[in-house]
Order: sequence, then C-alpha cells, then structure tokens
Amino acid sequence: MGLDPRVRCCPDGLVTDRRRYVKVLDCTIRDGGLCNSWKFDHELVGRTFRALTAARVDYMEVGYRSSSEAFSREKVGPWRFCDETDLEAVASRGQMKLSTMVDVGKVSKSDIPRSTDTMISVVRIATYGHQIEEALDLLKHCLDNGYETFINVMAVSAVTPDDMDRYLEKVARSDVHNVAIVDSFGALLPHHVRYIYRKYRSFLGEEKKIGMHAHNNLQNGFANTVAAIEEGADFADATIHGIGRGAGNCPIETLLFFLDNPRYDVRPVLDLVEEFATLRDDLRWGYHLPYAISGYMNVHPKAAIAMMDRLDRYQCTGFYDRLLSDKRSGKVAAAE
Amino acid sequence: MGLDPRVRCCPDGLVTDRRRYVKVLDCTIRDGGLCNSWKFDHELVGRTFRALTAARVDYMEVGYRSSSEAFSREKVGPWRFCDETDLEAVASRGQMKLSTMVDVGKVSKSDIPRSTDTMISVVRIATYGHQIEEALDLLKHCLDNGYETFINVMAVSAVTPDDMDRYLEKVARSDVHNVAIVDSFGALLPHHVRYIYRKYRSFLGEEKKIGMHAHNNLQNGFANTVAAIEEGADFADATIHGIGRGAGNCPIETLLFFLDNPRYDVRPVLDLVEEFATLRDDLRWGYHLPYAISGYMNVHPKAAIAMMDRLDRYQCTGFYDRLLSDKRSGKVAAAE
Repeated sequence: MGLDPRVRCCPDGLVTDRRRYVKVLDCTIRDGGLCNSWKFDHELVGRTFRALTAARVDYMEVGYRSSSEAFSREKVGPWRFCDETDLEAVASRGQMKLSTMVDVGKVSKSDIPRSTDTMISVVRIATYGHQIEEALDLLKHCLDNGYETFINVMAVSAVTPDDMDRYLEKVARSDVHNVAIVDSFGALLPHHVRYIYRKYRSFLGEEKKIGMHAHNNLQNGFANTVAAIEEGADFADATIHGIGRGAGNCPIETLLFFLDNPRYDVRPVLDLVEEFATLRDDLRWGYHLPYAISGYMNVHPKAAIAMMDRLDRYQCTGFYDRLLSDKRSGKVAAAE
Repeated sequence: MGLDPRVRCCPDGLVTDRRRYVKVLDCTIRDGGLCNSWKFDHELVGRTFRALTAARVDYMEVGYRSSSEAFSREKVGPWRFCDETDLEAVASRGQMKLSTMVDVGKVSKSDIPRSTDTMISVVRIATYGHQIEEALDLLKHCLDNGYETFINVMAVSAVTPDDMDRYLEKVARSDVHNVAIVDSFGALLPHHVRYIYRKYRSFLGEEKKIGMHAHNNLQNGFANTVAAIEEGADFADATIHGIGRGAGNCPIETLLFFLDNPRYDVRPVLDLVEEFATLRDDLRWGYHLPYAISGYMNVHPKAAIAMMDRLDRYQCTGFYDRLLSDKRSGKVAAAE
C-alpha cells in the first residue's frame, strides 16, 4: 500500500509477493476461548463464521474437540467440545474449511468420528514435544478417518535444539499435511522465527505445509508471522483483533492487510472488530506488562494471566524479580 | 533469556550482540505529550527523570522548545516549551543527557540559547524532507552553540526514493551527529526498515550515528526497532509503556529487555509503568483499529486520532473505505 515498490523485497532477496500463496487460518473462537472458557454465544460465533466466509478466509477453527471426562460441561462453554448440534447452529458447509483442535491427553479417538459424519474437515493436534508418539497415534486415527491434519508442537521457544530435532524427525516420517510453529509463550523475535522455520523446512521438506502460530507478549505476533511468510510459510494463524490467550495472537486484520491478496476481502472482518474490541476491555488480551515480562522470560503465560487478574496488575517489579530468580535457579520447567 | 544461544544470530549472519553498543533515547514526555498537549505535571516528569537516570538510559527527551508565537501557553502544557525554570524543577545535571526537540517552522534561533546557559545538551531537529534547507540552517545554529545534534526527517514511509536521496545527500554534507529514521505514520514493516537503514548508512557513512524512531500502528514499533538494531543502528527511541502519538512508540521496557545490556537496569522503568498504564485508559495509545488502518494506508495518523475521539471509534468500515478512496484518487498528500 503506497510504499515504494522497490521496498517490496526483503534484504535477503525473497520477494514478499510470496504472500499471495499464503493460506489463513482463523482461530478466534478456539484460542480466544482460552480467555473466556469457550463461552461465546452462538450468535457471535455465527456472525464470525459468516464474516470469515465473506472474507474468503481459508480455515475457521471453531473450537476444541475434547473428552467429556476432560472438562466439565458446567464449567466450560460449547466450543471446548464442538458438538455437531452446536456446529450446525452456527455454520454451514461451504468453501471455508472448519477445523477443531484436539489436545493430546484430553481427547480420545472416539471423540473424532469419520469425517463424513461431521462438519469438521480439519483436525489440528496440539502436543508438547515429549508427547509426540501419542500425537502421531492420534494423527493416524485422523488420517484413517479422512481429515486434513495439522501437528502443532507447542512452546517451541522452550525446546532444546536436540529435542526439536527428535520430534521433527518423527513428524517428517508421518503423513501429516501441515505443521505449525507454535510460539505459545510469545517469546520469539523475528530472527528466532526465521531460524526455527528453516529448521522445520529442512526436516520436513517441501511436501508438508509449514505455518506460524504467534503470540503477542512482546507485540511481535504480527511481525513474527510476517517473518515466517517471508521465509516461505504456507499458512498463518490469526484471530480477530488479536484475541487469544494472554497477550493474544496475530490480528487477522493486519495479516489480511499485509497479504494484500485480492482473494481476501478484509471488510467483513473489520465489521466484526467492534464487538471483539468490547470484549477486550473485560478479557484483557493485548499488550500488558505482565505478558511482556513472561514472554521475555520465556515461560508459560499462566503466571502473567494470574497477575492480570489482580487489581495491582501493573506493579510488576516483584513479579519480574520472582520470575528472574525462578529462572536463574532452574525452578521453572522449560516446557510445562 | 533462555533461548538456544545458537539463535542469537540473525539469518544474514549479523550477531545481535551488536545490541550492546546501542544507546537509548527516551521520549516519553516529548512524544507522549502529543497525546495530552504536554500537560504532564512536574511530579510525574520528575519521577520519570529519576527512573530513567536510575535505569542508566542515555538520553531523556523532556519536551519541545518552541516559539511563544507558535503555541498558546494557555492551550499547551510546559513541555512544549521546556523553560529553564520547569527543567530545574524536575531534573538535575548528571550522566543522562537532556534533549529537546524543535520543529522546523515552530522555533526561532533565539529560542535556542548557548548550551552553557541551559540544562539541555542535545537538540533534535524534526523536519519534513522538503524543509531540509531550513533544518540545516537551524542545525548550524545548534552546532555553533555547543549542542549535540540530531536530524529527524519525519514520515519516511511517504517520501519518494529520489526525494530521500536528495535530503540524505544534504544531511551527509552537514556536521550533524545523529540521524533518526522516523516512521511517523507507523507504516513500515521490518524489511522496509532494513532497506531504509541501508540507504541511510550508505549516504551518511560510518561517522554519523543512525537510529530508529518507530510508531506502533501495526504493532511493529518494537520489531522495527529490533530490525534497525540488527542492521547496525547506533541508537533507538522508545517511551515508557509505548506512550506516544496515535498508536504510540516502541516500549522502552521491551527494548531494554532485548538489549540485555548490564549497563541498563530495567527495574526502575517497570516501577513507572503502572502510572502510564492508567494514563493509557484515557489517552488511548496502543493497538486500535483506526491506527492500524491509517498505518496500512500509509497516511498521517490525524484522521485515525479523530476517529478514536468518537464513541463509534471501532465502526471502521466507512473510515477504511474513505481512506482507500482518497488514496486511490490521490487526494491524500503523501507527506503533509
């Protein structure tokens, strides 16, 4: 938009018009649900479905599939389960693919029916590196049942290089279609993303699609997604107005601006921002000091989320000292 | 912090430990004053001075020097003038350099005394590219009167490449000490910053210091500053909690985290964030859709700031359509 066209080229020569090939996965309801226990009403989820459809976004991740034993239906809303009746109330079959996420250990195979028996056509398997065998077992079930599949290994900023090599070798041998680089802690800077992307690509080859799921603790959600796209990423996760756990995610509106692809229409998404901006006042995602500190410290955001629930949420010196001291004494496990 | 040390290297081989050489200029009061007409009370400015001194930040930009004719003292606060009596009430001479900004056209030479007669030791000259002759005339006056000097050519995202060459040739022939890359519209992405940095460096040589002044419309304030530092920038502007015009600036707390330099102590700055976080509720800098749209459109933030003053500030589809149509019809002058 407006800038000197000569600048449409990154310094290492990769033309960013590569971005025309990127697919967009919206995870507003799924990751945003981590802020409100998936208690979005059907009306809002229906509006989100229609806006994303009108914007011609490629995937909408409408929630998690979970075992009834893993969560109490009294404590969490419908999008932690994505029952077929709920899906039918908000969505219809069309161009946009519907996705659900499953957490290794919180879902059983019986929760994932044949893909012909559900509106869901995409399953994303969220796993920590050390659970990769269990994730691959779940993957086989999903492939056998006709789904497009993703493996999302979480918290990549806290994995040792050797452990990353180990899970990547296994993922490379699987038939998974897509692999997301997941910065759960919002700790990465763009040069880390480039390094990890290149590593993922070198292990996974050109056949598997690679994408970015960024968190915004250091306000790098969008910049890290752009870095992955410049490197050659095939897809990117984003959410409306950046809603998501802790500091939130890459905002889909800035991602669609950047992609500058006539295939997408950003306007229906802009129409929805007002509603989510109102939610932001209550749910408090976005740039806040506790999230910045936990991102910098490269730890799980749960301590920062607890800090944000307090009235003295910005009195962070003690919080900073505590995380720093835990870190130095090795008390904080890298990946929890 | 915690990440694989092998990742401490950008992809093109520049080691980011270059960041140990970067100097930090805080412009909390000066750029933040654009949100509240420089009406910070002396107590807060004094606390800011003491916190930045304790953090060992290199420069504090305490406001503007302006002609009494350019602004009414009834309408704007003291930090649009930086009178000596106000400076003496909040600051003392010490290690940290005190800076003021002057706007070409809104200051006369008589407003800038000999540096021995003021607590100010640094003058930053803000100019648009087309005013560069006037800026250089002011520069000569500042050099003759013993100041360390900066030239900040604003709105670089909207300057044609040829116009940029023209002002850089002139700045290169001057005796200015420092030159800031100023993204007034918050329109740049990291790869634009790299391109512009390399252009600035190639014109200005190694003798002059080059730095980054970023705005946060697309949440790239920090990422763009990191990109400039990776390229070799000598200094970076930042503000407490990112306060600044429109979407604000690069937050000094994340910048100090990133620099990871034992010379700095981030804790006194963290102590001050709570006070500024309270101001943010009223002054509304940070990520908001109108700012993202004006950044993407590469226009001056004033229309977005006006939009943010309305109650229907997030109903942005009409705002988006209007800016897009102005842009396509050439109605919006690139640099205003």
